[in-house]
Amino acid sequence: MTTEQTLSEHVKLYIAEHRVGRLATADEKGHPHVIPVCYAFDGKIVYSCVDEKPKTKPPNSLERVRNIRRNPHVALVIDEYSEDWSSLNYVVISGEANVMLQCAEHMKALRLLREKYPQYEAMRLEDKPVLKITPRKVTAWHS
Amino acid sequence: MTTEQTLSEHVKLYIAEHRVGRLATADEKGHPHVIPVCYAFDGKIVYSCVDEKPKTKPPNSLERVRNIRRNPHVALVIDEYSEDWSSLNYVVISGEANVMLQCAEHMKALRLLREKYPQYEAMRLEDKPVLKITPRKVTAWHS
Repeated sequence: MTTEQTLSEHVKLYIAEHRVGRLATADEKGHPHVIPVCYAFDGKIVYSCVDEKPKTKPPNSLERVRNIRRNPHVALVIDEYSEDWSSLNYVVISGEANVMLQCAEHMKALRLLREKYPQYEAMRLEDKPVLKITPRKVTAWHS
Repeated sequence: MTTEQTLSEHVKLYIAEHRVGRLATADEKGHPHVIPVCYAFDGKIVYSCVDEKPKTKPPNSLERVRNIRRNPHVALVIDEYSEDWSSLNYVVISGEANVMLQCAEHMKALRLLREKYPQYEAMRLEDKPVLKITPRKVTAWHS
């Protein structure tokens, strides 16, 4: 268990190189929600775009966005499942999120996300919210 | 979006056959927590054991157990990530959980978990808590 200031290079790489995480938010009543997300990590901050993967709802009405506007506390787990239970591992990032749109950091986040995911290159994301997750506690575990 | 009463066979199979989910809980302040979990599904109820995968803490002090004792609302996402974003899919189960120990249903849950995961056969689980998750809302999504 550690804070962002003391994340080891190993944990930073683990976060940066994995391709999917599962993001938990909670509404104002404490009812949790969890969803798979793509994300980019610059070594300190995690960015995740509410992207164009087909959605049935407009971005601002998505549960994760609505929850974060009301309750900024989030948790993101990044893990690899294996049938060999002696090689399980995960990193859990607990922190606070906010919803960004049309600022310099939004542009930086889109650049990082497109560098990591070629799938984003063809998508128009400039008007899509980006979740900025500031880690407060990072827990790394392996069996 | 549907309730347990109207889950399609397809969704039931999707839940039953996947090997790992990520379980979100929240503490009494609404701070979410999320962790990978193995689980079994009998068509109506999801069971997950706080098992012997090496833990640094006793089962009752684990964050998910502590959270559920204070706030029974949980969400479990089951998904498959793919670099082909046209074939993404997930199921999110929102519901209530309680912590079971030493009751008939606890024994049933252990049987289901051992049928699904041979890894559990060699483990002594009889004195380990099992989380019983009763779905209230199930959302299935695919791209």
